[in-house]
Amino acid sequence: MLKETAEKALLLGQPKTREGHVATYIPELGKVDPSGLGICIFTKDGEKIRVGDTDTRFSIQSISKIISLAIALEAYGKNKVFENVGMEPSGDAFNSLLKLENADGTPYNPLINAGALVISSYMVQMYTFEEVLENVRRLCMDPDIVLDIKVCHSEMSNLSRNRAIAYLLESKGVLHADVEKTLNFYVKMCSLSVTAESLANLGLVLAGGGIHPVTGERLLKEETVRIVKTIMLTCGMYDGSGEFAVRVGIPSKSGVGGGIISVVDGELGIGIYGPSLDEKGNSIAGIAMLEYISKEMGFHMFGQRKN
Amino acid sequence: MLKETAEKALLLGQPKTREGHVATYIPELGKVDPSGLGICIFTKDGEKIRVGDTDTRFSIQSISKIISLAIALEAYGKNKVFENVGMEPSGDAFNSLLKLENADGTPYNPLINAGALVISSYMVQMYTFEEVLENVRRLCMDPDIVLDIKVCHSEMSNLSRNRAIAYLLESKGVLHADVEKTLNFYVKMCSLSVTAESLANLGLVLAGGGIHPVTGERLLKEETVRIVKTIMLTCGMYDGSGEFAVRVGIPSKSGVGGGIISVVDGELGIGIYGPSLDEKGNSIAGIAMLEYISKEMGFHMFGQRKN
Amino acid sequence: MLKETAEKALLLGQPKTREGHVATYIPELGKVDPSGLGICIFTKDGEKIRVGDTDTRFSIQSISKIISLAIALEAYGKNKVFENVGMEPSGDAFNSLLKLENADGTPYNPLINAGALVISSYMVQMYTFEEVLENVRRLCMDPDIVLDIKVCHSEMSNLSRNRAIAYLLESKGVLHADVEKTLNFYVKMCSLSVTAESLANLGLVLAGGGIHPVTGERLLKEETVRIVKTIMLTCGMYDGSGEFAVRVGIPSKSGVGGGIISVVDGELGIGIYGPSLDEKGNSIAGIAMLEYISKEMGFHMFGQRKN
Amino acid sequence: MLKETAEKALLLGQPKTREGHVATYIPELGKVDPSGLGICIFTKDGEKIRVGDTDTRFSIQSISKIISLAIALEAYGKNKVFENVGMEPSGDAFNSLLKLENADGTPYNPLINAGALVISSYMVQMYTFEEVLENVRRLCMDPDIVLDIKVCHSEMSNLSRNRAIAYLLESKGVLHADVEKTLNFYVKMCSLSVTAESLANLGLVLAGGGIHPVTGERLLKEETVRIVKTIMLTCGMYDGSGEFAVRVGIPSKSGVGGGIISVVDGELGIGIYGPSLDEKGNSIAGIAMLEYISKEMGFHMFGQRKN
Repeated sequence: MLKETAEKALLLGQPKTREGHVATYIPELGKVDPSGLGICIFTKDGEKIRVGDTDTRFSIQSISKIISLAIALEAYGKNKVFENVGMEPSGDAFNSLLKLENADGTPYNPLINAGALVISSYMVQMYTFEEVLENVRRLCMDPDIVLDIKVCHSEMSNLSRNRAIAYLLESKGVLHADVEKTLNFYVKMCSLSVTAESLANLGLVLAGGGIHPVTGERLLKEETVRIVKTIMLTCGMYDGSGEFAVRVGIPSKSGVGGGIISVVDGELGIGIYGPSLDEKGNSIAGIAMLEYISKEMGFHMFGQRKN
Repeated sequence: MLKETAEKALLLGQPKTREGHVATYIPELGKVDPSGLGICIFTKDGEKIRVGDTDTRFSIQSISKIISLAIALEAYGKNKVFENVGMEPSGDAFNSLLKLENADGTPYNPLINAGALVISSYMVQMYTFEEVLENVRRLCMDPDIVLDIKVCHSEMSNLSRNRAIAYLLESKGVLHADVEKTLNFYVKMCSLSVTAESLANLGLVLAGGGIHPVTGERLLKEETVRIVKTIMLTCGMYDGSGEFAVRVGIPSKSGVGGGIISVVDGELGIGIYGPSLDEKGNSIAGIAMLEYISKEMGFHMFGQRKN
Repeated sequence: MLKETAEKALLLGQPKTREGHVATYIPELGKVDPSGLGICIFTKDGEKIRVGDTDTRFSIQSISKIISLAIALEAYGKNKVFENVGMEPSGDAFNSLLKLENADGTPYNPLINAGALVISSYMVQMYTFEEVLENVRRLCMDPDIVLDIKVCHSEMSNLSRNRAIAYLLESKGVLHADVEKTLNFYVKMCSLSVTAESLANLGLVLAGGGIHPVTGERLLKEETVRIVKTIMLTCGMYDGSGEFAVRVGIPSKSGVGGGIISVVDGELGIGIYGPSLDEKGNSIAGIAMLEYISKEMGFHMFGQRKN
Repeated sequence: MLKETAEKALLLGQPKTREGHVATYIPELGKVDPSGLGICIFTKDGEKIRVGDTDTRFSIQSISKIISLAIALEAYGKNKVFENVGMEPSGDAFNSLLKLENADGTPYNPLINAGALVISSYMVQMYTFEEVLENVRRLCMDPDIVLDIKVCHSEMSNLSRNRAIAYLLESKGVLHADVEKTLNFYVKMCSLSVTAESLANLGLVLAGGGIHPVTGERLLKEETVRIVKTIMLTCGMYDGSGEFAVRVGIPSKSGVGGGIISVVDGELGIGIYGPSLDEKGNSIAGIAMLEYISKEMGFHMFGQRKN
């Protein structure tokens, strides 16, 4: 039944792609086909559902923020990571400087750009980008994840706003490494090329509390995974996170590359590709598909499972 | 084991009461004994755990906001209710005017004062206060809930800030009833006298998806309960909601009267009384007890249940 | 030459009236004829220039704020008056709540609504409205100034936003009298009916350092007048004050009733009536006329006088 | 009498220096002697009053902003210069990002850092730094003005906040040149070494409407000088400009190096050195001296001249 639901979701999602727009503030992202759409669901029982464009490579963008958060938590521990970044939804756009300016400079959470930059400043102190890339491949069970050089260059050439955020963080004393090095790492992480399948794999790892679904190997600590899922729930869909939690109720993280990763806790991981975005930066068809599937299957965290 | 955990939590919580302060901006609330502390856990299997001050009557304050939200959802439906109030955490203090001024005047969510005032403006159009009171008694299974006249008068005499919020809402065109009538209803709802037990009862109804735990009667629609629990999770603990979701992971709503209602979905309801507050307005010992119990029992929504 | 300049200014101003709009947020103000326009210039040498609609009665609105400021300064002295209101341009709209919320609640200056409400709260403690009205008539040398009941009622019925500001001020502890009494006084002052001639008379008193141009009687202290003129210069034209100072360079105060009072220091007073407003709330033709006259006559405070 | 007044002002100012602090956010500025104090008054009649430390070289800092503004106005004209920078006091601190973020990115005025950066981006398109330096020497009639390399390096090493502002401006599309080139020019201008005498000379040029007091040569257009003086008046003393206009009433511009330039229009220029600052960044003794002199001599623009 899950497969039919996914198929129906795709049919329902496809016309939606015409209602949104691909991201254009990074010129390279503006070149992708807005009609692309795919969904991948991997369950703990080994079922692998692939519908639509599930092997198209696309830019991971902000979804990398949960991976960086997970790796930083593993490396530094909860207390250290949350010294200079909060856990609160901000109520503002992901790239806002307002809250930084009003308060002590501590970003509200690790999934807004400012927070992700603080996390990045931890990462560059401990790891090379290549080491992190290797880790990402392992977590997503996808050895083909690479840096998309074109996206990376395009983003480096349009970095004024993130640069402003990073220098503001430095001036507030909450950045732990060189600004340009931090920005470089941040942009590289955003420029990784993944597929809906890579995201479904990672989603399944998170659903399983950090354990590899096939080998049974522990890839992430239980606490790390619990924190990541909670912050995905409260902050994962930009300033539409609250409404998404009410309507869909599945911890998720989106990126302006069109990807969404979702975690039905204890059960399955979902990866979505749909680069046509709504005005908040979330995949417009992706959200519609998730809302449909959540309703049909009873996947809302506070709903009743159907089968 | 749940009982021992609750007892240990109380022991752990008691010294914490000395680290906070009772609310003083409503003078009448400033008179309560800061050392009061109690926790009540009611499970779907009929277990009733009462530890500490579980039958002390205290002021429900902001916890009434989830009851008003629930009743408004039942009466008007989701679409109508969320026409002039959002579902997003605001990132600001519960009584802030900033977001109202910057945007179109729609409060971010129904649990900040501005949002609760919009909800109240719906309520006064359809119900008398007495009708709503009757409903509250039914939902909390507590016929002894009354309006605390002293608290009500004290709050009416210190209403400048909420009055400012209400008139600003009116000027933005998002209030659906007379300002003073709305404020009056709002204050009366905040001035209801409940016990930890009343809250545990209501918590159990929410945990059960809206069904009376004893009679099996449906008190609230499933959708209403799902929405209420989700918004409790993302917005229930003032501007500490995000951190609380990470650390405790149980949908909860606090009030400056010292109460907290918590819902372990599908299992049990918790009511807490502890009027000594932290600087965000949450019961300081209450949060400590909930964090301890969540950890010991594995109650975090994304954690693993222990038993 | 001054008379011809004024006549040319009127011709230049008349077509401008079609580019603006009369104020509509107070319904009664929305009923006036937008094409009305007049300018009155009274010099210390006794020259009285009247061009266009100089005896049309109109609503004084915000221009009353400088009169209230002057009377409060006379009654309480500089130190007392500026205890709870600043002297700084705010950079925000005249009815903004932002700065109040961010800071300690002290309004930035006496010419924004919040500041004028603080001043009004001083006034009601010392004077009845009738006493103040008598004083206004004396300062404007116009015994026919009356309260426009229709405007007053219209404004009292559309007071939500100012009420919000006033209650916010009360909650911050910077209001010195009962909120509703203060608002009532404030609205009455705004509802006074004046003419361009009344304003030119007052302007001449200010130009003369507080001395009645005919009788030589001192109506206001020199210090009062100096303060009033300075604050007119920095804050008198809403959030267009800075640009007006650059382009025109004459201390002025406008009101949404279409009036402007201007003071060429040491020389003359100007009163303007032109109810068609620009988007900041200033008389659109009035500003054009003042800019023309300032340029032609060299009236800019830092310019060179021509003759 | 002017000389005695200046001497008394110095005596009055000296103890004040102990109430403030030298700027420390640029480490090199933190090394200067806080007790330094001097005042220089040059009149159109050739009187040259020098009291205290009038030939100590110090860092011009923000006073350079009026020179840049003047040169940009000469080179580009009023319309072009004010395309991407406003003329309004901002009501916020000189280095705030708030207003930039809320609005369209146009800085409020050319004397806050953001505005000065926009002006700097014009300058680097037309002039080399050496050409501008030559111009500064000419305007200040001081061939010994040089770039203080130590201050320049110190400031370049502590530039995070201004860099954040500059990149934010670039992201909003209001910067007209390369960010780093613009910042470099901006810092160099701030790092010029002047004396109280250099400032008094420039003040006298401004007082004279742009004409060299000795040679009679026109150094700046009348319009340029009128604009500069007006913006000094409304925005020159950081977020204390409004109060300074009321109390002192002389167009002035201060810098955190301890300098103040003041212009008594049509009469004289004043240069002050006093590096001990108040909390807004203005020379604490400098303001006290100016207030005293203004009062004694009747120099307030709306006051009555005494002699």
